[in-house]
Amino acid sequence: MKKNILSLLFIVLTLPIYSQHNYVKYVKPIIGTQRMGHVYPGASAPFGMVQLSPDTDTIPYSVSGKYNPEVYKYCAGYQYDDKTIVGFSHTHFSGTGHSDLGDFLVMPTVGKLQLNPGTADKPLSGFRSSFTHTNETAEAGYYKVKLDDDNILAELTASNRVGFHQYTFPKSDEAHIILDLMSGIYNYPEKNVWTYVRVVNDTLITGYRQTNGWAKNRIQYFALSFSKPFLSYGSKNFEDKQVYRGFWGKFNQTKNFPEISGKQLRMHFDFKTENQEKIKIKLALSSVSMSGALQNLTAEIQHWNFDSVVKQTQDLWEKELSKIEIEGSNELKENFYTAMYHSFLAPTTYMDIDGKYKGLDQEIHQAKGFTNYTTFSLWDTYRALHPLFNILQPKRNNDMAHSMMKHYEQSAQKMLPIWSHHANDNWCMSGYHSVSVVADAILKNVYTGDPIKALEACVATAKKLNYEGIGDYIDKGFIPAEKSGISVSNTLEYAYDDWAIAQLAKKVNRQDVYEEFMRRSGNWKNNFDKSSGFMRPKLADGTFKKEFDILSTHGQGFIEGNSWNYSFFVPHDPMGLIAIMGGQKSFTQKLDKLFSMNLPDTFFAETEDITRDGIIGGYVHGNEPAHHVAYLYNWTNQPWKTQEKIRTILKMQYKPTPDGLGGNDDCGQMSAWFIFSSLGFYPVAPGSNDYAIGSPSVDYAKLNLENGKSFEIKVLNQSDKNIYVSNMTLNDKPLSKYFITYEDIMKGGTLKITMSDQPEK
Amino acid sequence: MKKNILSLLFIVLTLPIYSQHNYVKYVKPIIGTQRMGHVYPGASAPFGMVQLSPDTDTIPYSVSGKYNPEVYKYCAGYQYDDKTIVGFSHTHFSGTGHSDLGDFLVMPTVGKLQLNPGTADKPLSGFRSSFTHTNETAEAGYYKVKLDDDNILAELTASNRVGFHQYTFPKSDEAHIILDLMSGIYNYPEKNVWTYVRVVNDTLITGYRQTNGWAKNRIQYFALSFSKPFLSYGSKNFEDKQVYRGFWGKFNQTKNFPEISGKQLRMHFDFKTENQEKIKIKLALSSVSMSGALQNLTAEIQHWNFDSVVKQTQDLWEKELSKIEIEGSNELKENFYTAMYHSFLAPTTYMDIDGKYKGLDQEIHQAKGFTNYTTFSLWDTYRALHPLFNILQPKRNNDMAHSMMKHYEQSAQKMLPIWSHHANDNWCMSGYHSVSVVADAILKNVYTGDPIKALEACVATAKKLNYEGIGDYIDKGFIPAEKSGISVSNTLEYAYDDWAIAQLAKKVNRQDVYEEFMRRSGNWKNNFDKSSGFMRPKLADGTFKKEFDILSTHGQGFIEGNSWNYSFFVPHDPMGLIAIMGGQKSFTQKLDKLFSMNLPDTFFAETEDITRDGIIGGYVHGNEPAHHVAYLYNWTNQPWKTQEKIRTILKMQYKPTPDGLGGNDDCGQMSAWFIFSSLGFYPVAPGSNDYAIGSPSVDYAKLNLENGKSFEIKVLNQSDKNIYVSNMTLNDKPLSKYFITYEDIMKGGTLKITMSDQPEK
Repeated sequence: MKKNILSLLFIVLTLPIYSQHNYVKYVKPIIGTQRMGHVYPGASAPFGMVQLSPDTDTIPYSVSGKYNPEVYKYCAGYQYDDKTIVGFSHTHFSGTGHSDLGDFLVMPTVGKLQLNPGTADKPLSGFRSSFTHTNETAEAGYYKVKLDDDNILAELTASNRVGFHQYTFPKSDEAHIILDLMSGIYNYPEKNVWTYVRVVNDTLITGYRQTNGWAKNRIQYFALSFSKPFLSYGSKNFEDKQVYRGFWGKFNQTKNFPEISGKQLRMHFDFKTENQEKIKIKLALSSVSMSGALQNLTAEIQHWNFDSVVKQTQDLWEKELSKIEIEGSNELKENFYTAMYHSFLAPTTYMDIDGKYKGLDQEIHQAKGFTNYTTFSLWDTYRALHPLFNILQPKRNNDMAHSMMKHYEQSAQKMLPIWSHHANDNWCMSGYHSVSVVADAILKNVYTGDPIKALEACVATAKKLNYEGIGDYIDKGFIPAEKSGISVSNTLEYAYDDWAIAQLAKKVNRQDVYEEFMRRSGNWKNNFDKSSGFMRPKLADGTFKKEFDILSTHGQGFIEGNSWNYSFFVPHDPMGLIAIMGGQKSFTQKLDKLFSMNLPDTFFAETEDITRDGIIGGYVHGNEPAHHVAYLYNWTNQPWKTQEKIRTILKMQYKPTPDGLGGNDDCGQMSAWFIFSSLGFYPVAPGSNDYAIGSPSVDYAKLNLENGKSFEIKVLNQSDKNIYVSNMTLNDKPLSKYFITYEDIMKGGTLKITMSDQPEK
Repeated sequence: MKKNILSLLFIVLTLPIYSQHNYVKYVKPIIGTQRMGHVYPGASAPFGMVQLSPDTDTIPYSVSGKYNPEVYKYCAGYQYDDKTIVGFSHTHFSGTGHSDLGDFLVMPTVGKLQLNPGTADKPLSGFRSSFTHTNETAEAGYYKVKLDDDNILAELTASNRVGFHQYTFPKSDEAHIILDLMSGIYNYPEKNVWTYVRVVNDTLITGYRQTNGWAKNRIQYFALSFSKPFLSYGSKNFEDKQVYRGFWGKFNQTKNFPEISGKQLRMHFDFKTENQEKIKIKLALSSVSMSGALQNLTAEIQHWNFDSVVKQTQDLWEKELSKIEIEGSNELKENFYTAMYHSFLAPTTYMDIDGKYKGLDQEIHQAKGFTNYTTFSLWDTYRALHPLFNILQPKRNNDMAHSMMKHYEQSAQKMLPIWSHHANDNWCMSGYHSVSVVADAILKNVYTGDPIKALEACVATAKKLNYEGIGDYIDKGFIPAEKSGISVSNTLEYAYDDWAIAQLAKKVNRQDVYEEFMRRSGNWKNNFDKSSGFMRPKLADGTFKKEFDILSTHGQGFIEGNSWNYSFFVPHDPMGLIAIMGGQKSFTQKLDKLFSMNLPDTFFAETEDITRDGIIGGYVHGNEPAHHVAYLYNWTNQPWKTQEKIRTILKMQYKPTPDGLGGNDDCGQMSAWFIFSSLGFYPVAPGSNDYAIGSPSVDYAKLNLENGKSFEIKVLNQSDKNIYVSNMTLNDKPLSKYFITYEDIMKGGTLKITMSDQPEK
């Protein structure tokens, strides 16, 4: 009987109580948490510094010195299929394909103290707990789960820099809150460089954790406040070898000792609880110092009203989400607003409330006139996410470009970021795509900094001779296959990036730079093998590499894409590509084949991160190199094929279910693709002001712009069958081509598209 | 022929060219570098942040997990008997008996690059070099040595925060400067937590090193400037296990890569040199940041004139040394001014040029109105060094007391320092003697801070119940032997410290605190065993421990002193001690026996840090607990025995030779004892304003005080035979007792002492 009342209580408690907003209610953070999406279901404010989310496992990066492939599943700490939660940590990437972070894991328990997490198959062997999705709710800025093992309800929310936990305990004389400073994502014993904790008083602790992970030199500071004084506390150092500490023997350092440090620490804070008593935690982050974290904590949340923080953060989300108002099916809205949500998680704020932040040079800097951001997954996000920001978030994108310029100034290499997070560059992936983001922001008049200095930074980056083949690329026009495993990807992407630099140079009247980089932007041709019709690695002697598999990625000169997909990577010169591929007919046939071919099973066996679901024919949507490819039909006489492919991709690759994302969301790039494509247009070549028209899947959309104007998209007769564009007007004037411009959108107006079930051939 | 000219050149170069000052010329930093002195011969400014000195070996603290007793010899990095120098590092303790530091070892070499130091028996196997004392000069603020293996002349000097190296190379196409970030004093593989280096340009690098040594959480930042651009550079990571660094493969990180980090790094910078070409290095330190170090560098030395920095630093030393002008033999002057030099090396400046420093709370603080100091070896230095500062360095001692108060405010434990260095407390030794230093500074009107707050800090420290037996000490009046291996030392020292607190409380009219701590100050009686006549460990049940050896230290309840020495440790109540020991006759007999007994060989076998040379009878001068004991005859009717013993100790324990110090100099305490005792008086109980008269060994001394006054000591008929005081006048008035006061000195005046070869019985 009692148990029934408790169950009923849990049902009531697990109803989504905070979903009174118009758009927040469509956000399902659980979408993409199964399989390859690599998003996290926890709580974050828009572009927030804190991403407070459950970790369902803490798999080591390597076992006995060997890479552990299981770790890949846990890029965001959470896998939907898991049955246990280890705890709740404060930093997570959204949708990445390599990882880091997972700082400061907190877990509430009752009963005998356990300082080991235990294993997924035996959760009772440690502090982790079983859970079920029935008792789990994930909303934008709010997460709730019942921890079954100890009958504790866990609720999470976050302001920009503060994670707010609310734990509802059963009655217990042995209630604990575990703070695990060892736990982390993509962890390995050597990742923790040092941790330090200072117990300031019985409700406040501060500290830091330094790690050597994907970011080599990362320090995360924190300040943690408890709503209720703990009765006692302690720590355990799990380090294998501990060094001499003779004179420290004067204290018992494991119990109520207020200054703890070491490499592998777990702490516990002990309480007595009444039934249904709530213990709350606020944990603020800082890249600057413990006092910086404390200042963030004090400035952002002055009270213990959990619900009001949930409301405040969901109000912020509502404001961001309502930048696009759409009409369409419920399923579409769930997909769309979840994509909006995922697009607005990263880049993340990387600056204290007073403007101080740690720079790439490991010094503390003061941001003047901009918000400093980090988490730049640029190989992914230059394609559609930053272009989306130029429309919906120009102020933030301006700040992001400023952040990249500061990165450049602070860089020992004097380079713009490649893939940067937390005052480090992890140098991930090919190209130097920050130049695209910076150039595009300037070309669209979004960037308020000095464009000449920005051009200098782009040029310096593109001329870093000892970086990943750039020297050869400049000397020979291609990168010899002997020197790089990803020579073709790099040459193709450098060529596009160079074109973006040229556009910027032109804008600031640097004709010399324009001409130099326009020349470089044609280097893609040097890897095109006319005999096979594909992009192909070339040897230093100028001949193409003999052994070559157009379907394979590994060892073929490409990264996250085979030659079939990469051969279309000339976003800045589709007409040139069409010409070199033998003209319109030959080109469209090739595109058709990409979308219709049957791949052999060996393809999937070899390729990380790709399943049959993430593929249409040979077109891989789960990785980014082909994201623009379906739009290339617009440069031919068959734009209706773009419309057809886009609708297929939208339908197949995005579903409002835990397994609904066809690949890593990649810090919002997959989601930004969805938003653009659902609205009916896409930025094929950032740096250009043109968007290629696709096939809108919304019935209506209104973009509420920061400049106070709005741009409406009215879609007539749209349905699952009526996927072809039959008529278009812009501000009631007929559109003669399948393109609109940035200016068309930003000055406000109405795009009217009439759909049909018949292609306009 | 050519070789002869070179040899001649070296003879000229190795002459002491900088000794034109009156007092600097008597300073022989080489005194005490042999055997137990543990001082370093290198260059430092008075109380300087930088101690730039040669390291003759880098012995690991432990081998295969076992303590390596050889490490003890290398507390200061240098042993006179060694034949090779590994390099020159920037931080060294002066005279300590446990150690740390040795940061940023620099070594010039020519020929094939060697990144291993090699071994002492095969110096050519690595970058270390042979040297001889013939080619070595050590002065205050200047050090020079010829490195024989590569025929390089190395010269060192230092401003407060900058170490300045000058290396004279032979002609070479392969000249190198090694920067070893692994090397350290009391090193072990786990001590290096992390190092980071940033090559800013071809003459400037910055970085830091984080260590987990005697200081558990220590970060030392640096900025290093070369006088000549290096042609190339590189690094090697000697870490056993290196972690995943996939995307970093884009660079060759070992060569000309400008951002290097890891746990075990050595770097090299490559040059071509002409014959006799000088390459100079300035390396600045900071506890705050790399930019703080760079600021220190720029602020302190704007040029490359090595000689002018030597002069500037030696001028500073001359100013400090001339605070006491003495007359006496050359040998005496060498001993005296070297003692002055050693007394003014520590505590060390711990603050950037702009007043920023790292606090004990690991936060960056701004010093307002004081200079922040660190390296507080208080168990040693409260006895005579800080009392000496109250006379000669009141401004600095005031700043030191302020630094200790900041330590208290920043302390997680809310305690004043025990043994603190570099934003850490290493908790070394017994007692809480910072209370003595703080109280004494207030009682002598040297401290300008709030005395009430200072009293609060002293009381809080003395009531830290879970620290080293304090709870029991308060409850029972002694510390049960079961609970602490050094129960008697602690009880005796706490009792003295409590008396100092009581004196402070009295001064600020806190009668309650005065009474409480006067009661506590009598606790020494609880460990006095009347049956044996010695201080003796007591069990929790109140009975004395049965097994007890008055000669042994280990496991007997004492630290660095046996019961024979410690039994006289009641500096604040000699009359009480005399009474309890059976009155004057019995007491003097016991003292006589201490100085005349014959110790068994087993004593020396068991006792670390003591040789027969360091002992007079059973009196141990090499350790501190008995430093006041020879003066205790002044409380009996046999003060002439004090005079006799003091002269014996002065003669036997201090010699102007490399092996001239009878024990660790202990950050200047041994030297301060020498200065006081040579002048003829000593502070038996800091906190009291009285100094006990001994037997001056100077013929004349003039103390030039900061208040503009001077105090003269005129000693008539003093000689090696005339060691007894026969007559004393103060300002021409007869002195009726063997004491003078602080006020007597500070208001200026003349103490005239007439000596005789006959004791005044």
